[in-house]
Amino acid sequence: MGTVRVTFLPNQESVETQPGKTLLEVAKQAGIFVASICGGDGICGKCRLIVQSGEVDASPTTLLSREEIQAGYVLACQTRVIGDVDVLVPPESRGEGAQILIDQDAQRFRALYPTTAEQAFYRHDPLIQKLLLDLPEPNLQDNLGCRERLYREIRRHLDAPVMQMGLKVLQALPTLHRDKDWKVTATLGRRGGTLEVIQVEAGDHARRNYGIALDIGTSTVVIHLLDLTTSETIDAEACYNSQAPFGAEVTRRIIYAVREGAKVLRDAIVSDINNLISTLISRNPVELNDVTTVCAAGNTTMLHFLLGLDPSGIRKSPYVPAALVPPPVRAAEVGIKINPRGLLYVMPSIGSWVGGDITAGILATGLSQTDRLTMLIDVGTNGEIVLGDRDWMIACATSAGPAFEGSGVKCGMKASSGAIERVEISSEGRVTAQTIGDVKAKGFCGSGLIDAIASLFQAGIIDRSGNLLPERSSRVHKQDVQLEFVLVPEERAEAGRDIVVTQPDIENVLRAKAAIYAGAKILLESTQHRFDDIEQLFIAGGFGNYLDREKAITLGMIPDIPLERIRFVGNTSLIGAKMALLSTEAYERCFEIAKSATYYDLITYPNYYEEFMSAKFLPHTDLSLFPSVAQTMHNDAMSANGQPTRGTI
Amino acid sequence: MGTVRVTFLPNQESVETQPGKTLLEVAKQAGIFVASICGGDGICGKCRLIVQSGEVDASPTTLLSREEIQAGYVLACQTRVIGDVDVLVPPESRGEGAQILIDQDAQRFRALYPTTAEQAFYRHDPLIQKLLLDLPEPNLQDNLGCRERLYREIRRHLDAPVMQMGLKVLQALPTLHRDKDWKVTATLGRRGGTLEVIQVEAGDHARRNYGIALDIGTSTVVIHLLDLTTSETIDAEACYNSQAPFGAEVTRRIIYAVREGAKVLRDAIVSDINNLISTLISRNPVELNDVTTVCAAGNTTMLHFLLGLDPSGIRKSPYVPAALVPPPVRAAEVGIKINPRGLLYVMPSIGSWVGGDITAGILATGLSQTDRLTMLIDVGTNGEIVLGDRDWMIACATSAGPAFEGSGVKCGMKASSGAIERVEISSEGRVTAQTIGDVKAKGFCGSGLIDAIASLFQAGIIDRSGNLLPERSSRVHKQDVQLEFVLVPEERAEAGRDIVVTQPDIENVLRAKAAIYAGAKILLESTQHRFDDIEQLFIAGGFGNYLDREKAITLGMIPDIPLERIRFVGNTSLIGAKMALLSTEAYERCFEIAKSATYYDLITYPNYYEEFMSAKFLPHTDLSLFPSVAQTMHNDAMSANGQPTRGTI
Repeated sequence: MGTVRVTFLPNQESVETQPGKTLLEVAKQAGIFVASICGGDGICGKCRLIVQSGEVDASPTTLLSREEIQAGYVLACQTRVIGDVDVLVPPESRGEGAQILIDQDAQRFRALYPTTAEQAFYRHDPLIQKLLLDLPEPNLQDNLGCRERLYREIRRHLDAPVMQMGLKVLQALPTLHRDKDWKVTATLGRRGGTLEVIQVEAGDHARRNYGIALDIGTSTVVIHLLDLTTSETIDAEACYNSQAPFGAEVTRRIIYAVREGAKVLRDAIVSDINNLISTLISRNPVELNDVTTVCAAGNTTMLHFLLGLDPSGIRKSPYVPAALVPPPVRAAEVGIKINPRGLLYVMPSIGSWVGGDITAGILATGLSQTDRLTMLIDVGTNGEIVLGDRDWMIACATSAGPAFEGSGVKCGMKASSGAIERVEISSEGRVTAQTIGDVKAKGFCGSGLIDAIASLFQAGIIDRSGNLLPERSSRVHKQDVQLEFVLVPEERAEAGRDIVVTQPDIENVLRAKAAIYAGAKILLESTQHRFDDIEQLFIAGGFGNYLDREKAITLGMIPDIPLERIRFVGNTSLIGAKMALLSTEAYERCFEIAKSATYYDLITYPNYYEEFMSAKFLPHTDLSLFPSVAQTMHNDAMSANGQPTRGTI
Repeated sequence: MGTVRVTFLPNQESVETQPGKTLLEVAKQAGIFVASICGGDGICGKCRLIVQSGEVDASPTTLLSREEIQAGYVLACQTRVIGDVDVLVPPESRGEGAQILIDQDAQRFRALYPTTAEQAFYRHDPLIQKLLLDLPEPNLQDNLGCRERLYREIRRHLDAPVMQMGLKVLQALPTLHRDKDWKVTATLGRRGGTLEVIQVEAGDHARRNYGIALDIGTSTVVIHLLDLTTSETIDAEACYNSQAPFGAEVTRRIIYAVREGAKVLRDAIVSDINNLISTLISRNPVELNDVTTVCAAGNTTMLHFLLGLDPSGIRKSPYVPAALVPPPVRAAEVGIKINPRGLLYVMPSIGSWVGGDITAGILATGLSQTDRLTMLIDVGTNGEIVLGDRDWMIACATSAGPAFEGSGVKCGMKASSGAIERVEISSEGRVTAQTIGDVKAKGFCGSGLIDAIASLFQAGIIDRSGNLLPERSSRVHKQDVQLEFVLVPEERAEAGRDIVVTQPDIENVLRAKAAIYAGAKILLESTQHRFDDIEQLFIAGGFGNYLDREKAITLGMIPDIPLERIRFVGNTSLIGAKMALLSTEAYERCFEIAKSATYYDLITYPNYYEEFMSAKFLPHTDLSLFPSVAQTMHNDAMSANGQPTRGTI
């Protein structure tokens, strides 16, 4: 059987392959990133390519319109190569893959996490520290062994009842001791109640100690490089999680891992992390060997992939992970390239579905120490919610789906350059959209989508069930069988096609926001509270730098409480990891948090489904829960025709 | 340059080599063991070969007699190959190398260390134990992670505040948990205040847990295989330390290591240990994978070689070793082949010259817990002496030299088959000698040498200075320039030549015994004690199974105290290692011992040299220190001619 040649445009990248392979497989083989969320199941409709010449066999799909099919659009995963083919990867399918976010994107990530008083409440005492020791020169009266002399000296500085030292370090000791005037720098790392002598260097290197804080999100990996001596954040970087082709959601990735082995997923995330680290190292005056520590937060599944732990128990009842509290391990043992003896610490998880990212979030927001009733909502592919105060904490996870991260919606994209992040629609239907980087729009990210749907509702273009009303706006079109609202017409869009919000997109978002709202409501009710009891509401997440709180309330995603109680706190997973990296006290607090927080399984709540269904309306079936929204609706209705028109459903 | 062929007889082993190499180098290259103590410096005179044909270039030596040189004898290390050569390795030069001691030799080692109440005082609680755990099946109310479920269950059985687990064990956990009805066997090892989960197996393997106790002597390596569940000693084995060719004494080996690298020494001892282990495994129903623990005792230098630590500080003032208290390490990390995750524990040392073998000896004899003033003398290549009781301990090391281990004396050999171990010489000069294994004599071991010299003195054949008196026995000959006493004439000796005690041999022994005696005396005096205060005197060592206490007193090697206070206790280094292996309490006691014993450097004693010189006589310059010997001498003298003849010097 001969081979065929597939050429990917516009970059003219060519690859020889066997006929019968899908274009998605061929693209992967050629190292070309093609957006894909479902991992090749023909569900997400993201892997759109345009066949410009050559013969292919494309399975029928409802995810492309008749016009698109005529224009040559195919879904890469549903299209098999027959002969030599030229295909164009359109901008919306390109994505950045595992590439580093550059310029303004990275800038934005940096800007979001200021280096200010994040760790103010915890003593500066990094997980791994370097100690300059001035060893007394031995003599006949004081001729303990090198190891014992070193331990004695360390104990003069630190309270360390149980100390450990690997054989390699011990083997190198005697030579070091004699050099540099009996001055040595000991690198000391905490490992569960013990102190490990990780490295001993001749001379003074005490100030050359750097750490990495890491947030491993299902879609994005964010990294900060810190000077552990000064607590200063030196630089930051982020990239897409290159596990994405194996599934947009953790569940799909676990299924993939069970079927095909977890190695490819592990390799993907480790490679992302190493790329990020080497980028930061290359542009800063830091030696890789002086990076001693990595502190990683992420959901339970991401941490399992990173550590090479079997994730299969996470998605099957009774949801038993390999470890909620994995021990620190040598970073090199999982393939992370820093100092070969440096350690990787991971934030402890609360349960299979409430991970170390939430533990970090609780740490970062101070939820576990406040005496005010506080709710934390971390909006991501899963929406995790924590409720509590210094005395108790309860947490749940909702399957929000990836809509708020720009996935699973037709023109959705991640919060990077060209994503619409803010939308206003006037009562006359005039659309104002602002993109990240102020460039031509490619699609919209989570915050843009929230704004768009809330604005459509406020403008009366969708009703309380989320139905698009063609009579209300000329921008509502029927495309094939479904309605969509044109947010940006093709002539003004980078993609060269309309950027639209479709009826299924709206339904996706309503399901997602309903899941979050229902989860929040159930946590409150099961602890005998009402929304109004919430004294602080923290919204965390990676859906952008920005959240319009009023629009989120209008959508019914977050409860209708006074705006001053609501704070958008950004990526608390990363902030918590940084705090732990810089303070052993903060790190140890995480274990208390993970242990004391109760995991609440929403499925066990008797009326979960009713709560979810009731929350699927705009803002909610029960308008009394959203008095401020009801008031606006009333005012709008009054001002429009003197009669309430949308007060009931 | 062509090659030449060297053939070693009687086994006809041939090897091609370059002209100019020494016969010792060529033998090493051919894998043929030739006895050597000095490591090739032409000092020990042990590497005697007989050139039967061919051309060699032999450097002049005083270590061979004129007759021997005429008979073709050469020193292998001082003889370079010119052309093809046939050389005979005579029996006395063969040695067993790294070969396992077989038959009666091994039997004797076994017999010496009965499996009785060695560990009676310590609770049975092996360093590594296996625990069968019946894990509760998880459910939605109890869905902790696999790691946390395991830890919880372990803590129901054991008090383990700090637990550790390697990544590999963690990675394998989830699968194991589901198998075998939620029964797992956890292998748990103590590591300095923490408990490591070393291994988790599905199902019940709790009774399959074996350990190795190891005594790494400078000349002999002894190993016992124990069932850690029952405390039973299953089997024992021993071999010569194959580091011997690099020097008989630790100092020479350190010099070699500094000059040539320690790797070859480390490889030698690791290979000995692995050979011994595989021998024991092959003849017992034990799987290598079920051997979880090695507990090793040895002097500080031997333990440094084993662990790959730099030994150079040990021999240079101020005598700082790499570590006195090396941490437990994975046995595989030093190359010892047991369970790949099994641990190697080494006995802590007291100082550079008082090692883990002495700590083990203190443990084994109970010295650190008795309220009776006790002295322990461990006679080996170094003679270590400990004095003390439950409240204090002081220890020193004397450079006895290898005479008592059969090295450095003309016809000396290790305590193995064919070694003369008991000697009686009647007042008429009749010699009765008993060999190990009741075979033809090859030479004499330490106890035979002690007996011989003491008997020669008692028979009046040597005077108090150790001078052989030709007029007293027809067996005293002059060979070249020096006198020697024929213990076994050539016709009755395996070696085919006379087994003799030479004047230099006697001087060697007098120096060795003087060093030990002076050390003992100084320890006593520096603590304001007299010999008579010693309530228990333990003599330990590997010079045989037997020590004639009276002869040792006659020789002036041990003090003249009532015989019932003196006990020969065998290899206390091994016994102590076994006790630690079987009882964590005993192991932990070793750290207290090593910490609380004070190392006393004899060199710092103002009159050390005078004490040493005074002790070089038989039994001592000051006869009042040896009243029982003086009495016998008096009686002998009186019975011989009615007049004291040898009462003064």
